[in-house]
Amino acid sequence: VSNRVITLLTDFGVADYFVGAMKGVILSRSPGSVLIDITHEIPVHDIQTAAFTLNAAYVWFPTGSIHLAIVDPGVGSDRRPILVEAGGHLFVGPDNGLFSLALDQGPSTQARHLTNSTYFLPKPSTTFQGRDIFAPVAAALANGISPVEFGPVVDDPVRLEPARFESLSDGSLRGKILHIDHFGNCVTNLPSRLFPTTTEPPPFVLELNGHMVRTLASSYEEGAVRSRGPFLIRGSAGYLEISLSSASAARTFDFSVADVVRLVWL
Amino acid sequence: VSNRVITLLTDFGVADYFVGAMKGVILSRSPGSVLIDITHEIPVHDIQTAAFTLNAAYVWFPTGSIHLAIVDPGVGSDRRPILVEAGGHLFVGPDNGLFSLALDQGPSTQARHLTNSTYFLPKPSTTFQGRDIFAPVAAALANGISPVEFGPVVDDPVRLEPARFESLSDGSLRGKILHIDHFGNCVTNLPSRLFPTTTEPPPFVLELNGHMVRTLASSYEEGAVRSRGPFLIRGSAGYLEISLSSASAARTFDFSVADVVRLVWL
Amino acid sequence: VSNRVITLLTDFGVADYFVGAMKGVILSRSPGSVLIDITHEIPVHDIQTAAFTLNAAYVWFPTGSIHLAIVDPGVGSDRRPILVEAGGHLFVGPDNGLFSLALDQGPSTQARHLTNSTYFLPKPSTTFQGRDIFAPVAAALANGISPVEFGPVVDDPVRLEPARFESLSDGSLRGKILHIDHFGNCVTNLPSRLFPTTTEPPPFVLELNGHMVRTLASSYEEGAVRSRGPFLIRGSAGYLEISLSSASAARTFDFSVADVVRLVWL
Repeated sequence: VSNRVITLLTDFGVADYFVGAMKGVILSRSPGSVLIDITHEIPVHDIQTAAFTLNAAYVWFPTGSIHLAIVDPGVGSDRRPILVEAGGHLFVGPDNGLFSLALDQGPSTQARHLTNSTYFLPKPSTTFQGRDIFAPVAAALANGISPVEFGPVVDDPVRLEPARFESLSDGSLRGKILHIDHFGNCVTNLPSRLFPTTTEPPPFVLELNGHMVRTLASSYEEGAVRSRGPFLIRGSAGYLEISLSSASAARTFDFSVADVVRLVWL
Repeated sequence: VSNRVITLLTDFGVADYFVGAMKGVILSRSPGSVLIDITHEIPVHDIQTAAFTLNAAYVWFPTGSIHLAIVDPGVGSDRRPILVEAGGHLFVGPDNGLFSLALDQGPSTQARHLTNSTYFLPKPSTTFQGRDIFAPVAAALANGISPVEFGPVVDDPVRLEPARFESLSDGSLRGKILHIDHFGNCVTNLPSRLFPTTTEPPPFVLELNGHMVRTLASSYEEGAVRSRGPFLIRGSAGYLEISLSSASAARTFDFSVADVVRLVWL
Repeated sequence: VSNRVITLLTDFGVADYFVGAMKGVILSRSPGSVLIDITHEIPVHDIQTAAFTLNAAYVWFPTGSIHLAIVDPGVGSDRRPILVEAGGHLFVGPDNGLFSLALDQGPSTQARHLTNSTYFLPKPSTTFQGRDIFAPVAAALANGISPVEFGPVVDDPVRLEPARFESLSDGSLRGKILHIDHFGNCVTNLPSRLFPTTTEPPPFVLELNGHMVRTLASSYEEGAVRSRGPFLIRGSAGYLEISLSSASAARTFDFSVADVVRLVWL
């Protein structure tokens, strides 16, 4: 009996039978698997948010964990079902960019096209490959079947356009809001490690929709003390975030995903 | 220590202590049980949706699984608490029609009235029998107590009016929308197996609220290519569904549960 | 391998990577732990609702369970991270009143300040102590590390203002609505045990926003039969609740948390 961790990340919501059916398939084929939901509330068909969320969560799981990620606008089309090995973790899902960030883990990553239907349910549907292909493949991996059994190597897995900021000619940085979390914190694509941790006030100002943000706080409470408006903070996903202490920065200032941020050095 | 799967399906939502309290009771009495949520987002008191969702999910779980299903407008009244054995699975919940579809599995199904209070919590409340009766009964079943111990056979478990389509005198079929899923797909009560899989265009047209649907797609992508409006697809629950490729058919066209569909052969 | 139950209760929602990351940290450090969500839908920063929900759920779990509860407006400030032992259960989270009700369990309760960073992730962030401090501490407890290892005893853990009702000079009771559940039942802070279980009609009337409630029902169905308006019922959390049989009392009558109730003896 396996006791491998299998995580699930989808845009299926939790009101339908979809997640239950996938878990039933896995437990029927790999009874000891430990099933953990990352989330089923990815906005419908939002591959970018799925890739961001998966990347911020999977690294904390034990090596050898299997991550089932299904946000799949192309289900039933000829987009490939794949298996990715990266950083000691296994990923199963559609080849549409979901695993872009995992594929950037280093030279030893490998993707495979899931072609061996031995490991699928009989007669897989075109509308629910999560249940019919991806769940039984995850179960087979949990049972110790080697990745090589599932299909040939894919040299060109789909990668999303990297969400990198630009360095402009005047030295300023042009980035954007990647994600807005449950608390209304606005996660940018500016990695925290680029910014000095000791100078105060910080040697830069960040502009977002006309708001000039001049405070880089080391905690939400400090941000509230030092700024009556939005402040910057080094977020837990590794990027600068724009926050408010006891309210949603996004709702209060009407910030949205993809809004442009501009950081100017002083 | 048992390692039986116990699934949970309720209309309790996930914001309250209800689901946690039930899981605590189960784990206190059957520590090794594997608890899997099917959903807690059944619309309040919607037995029909609960029966549909349970039926589409439970069949994928291992034989011997125990399914705790509680959508119970009559909690505390004299409606019976029951245990159903069907198709190698066990079901526990109120006798109000929730298990109608499971009871249709064949001649060997059996329902029992839960009368043996040995297996209940002491002094069960009238307001939360999920915690006080159904959860401890599920735990006892997981521990291997035989169904016969829980109470006498019930000959007349409540069954919902079957959601069958009608064949009209002109040969057309009159059905309805059973369920609308997270993606806005509208699940009808017309079983997919009745419809030819090879002819194209299909030898019928489906009418719904004035929309004439003439495409039967084999995938969402094919549907988008072949139709600019709604199309039919064989859904993963075994019924024809009305879908749109990258939007909610239900929201776009204002389709609702119980709307009538009419299928006319050409 | 531990198989201790670790419950989680937060205001993180389920759309972000937060809950997944915490579970990954726990399973990496304590692989056999059994993770159970109580809820992640506590209203943001609502410590009172969190304390109520935790208290109504945790008591049903096996002795020795570890309850990770994180509703933490002060994350990263100097509010203490604590560990509470009470009633045979262990609690981990911020010292902000979350554990008030558990601390009232009796004389043998004990709180400790989590100061031993051996059990934290390296370089804990100031923004996500759930992942960096509380999850690894819970994992260490599940692995059998003794509470004394984590830090010194705290004599003055934060307690919320108790949500007690008042006895007025005319003998009437003045209380309030503590919580509104998924079904719209309004949970008061008047303990059910204070009210006679046999007299009918009850020897009191409860007034709420101008509504005079004169029925104390023993089930929702009985309430519907005996009253066309709101009725009282002994709720499953141990308090009187104001309910409607097949609709939300809160929405129908516009009742809200903190609304005052007044009970007058007849």
